[in-house]
Amino acid sequence: MILHLAMFTWKDDVTAADVAELTAQLESMAAGIPALRQYHCGENLRLRPSDADYAVAAMVDDEAGLAAYLDSDAHQAVYDRLLGRMIERRQAAQLDVGHAG
Amino acid sequence: MILHLAMFTWKDDVTAADVAELTAQLESMAAGIPALRQYHCGENLRLRPSDADYAVAAMVDDEAGLAAYLDSDAHQAVYDRLLGRMIERRQAAQLDVGHAG
Repeated sequence: MILHLAMFTWKDDVTAADVAELTAQLESMAAGIPALRQYHCGENLRLRPSDADYAVAAMVDDEAGLAAYLDSDAHQAVYDRLLGRMIERRQAAQLDVGHAG
Repeated sequence: MILHLAMFTWKDDVTAADVAELTAQLESMAAGIPALRQYHCGENLRLRPSDADYAVAAMVDDEAGLAAYLDSDAHQAVYDRLLGRMIERRQAAQLDVGHAG
């Protein structure tokens, strides 16, 4: 399985309402994408110093599953409606996590 | 539960042998820290463009569990021996993932 991770730092004009709306839209999106075996998104709790404002952790079976998620119309729609204009910086990675969740 | 995520971009002089040794040391460390409910580390598969070279995803019960991991002597030892000199940039975040893994 593959764990896809993303961290975002928001632009200065992003509001708490934007972030709450983003979380609602991402959770709705995730519920409609069967390739997503697990999906977590939300504000960085900032338990350690960091300039990341938000993070996503998404578990998929394989590279095809990742594409089914990231290239989906639903994902693109969230990006176009909201996420795209919020991002100052973004960092992502994918980890091979074997057969374990 | 809390999912702690970290992504690293290595300095130019980091070798494949350094990375393999780091993974071995981190996995050994993780096996000895009961607070770590799940632990994954490894090279970024780079299935999408990214300048992150390596990532860690660590599941703990709560903030105390996170501290038991990040502030452990074993974690500090990996940092002092190897990780510290490898890092060009680091980004981290913690997600509240509720009761689900």
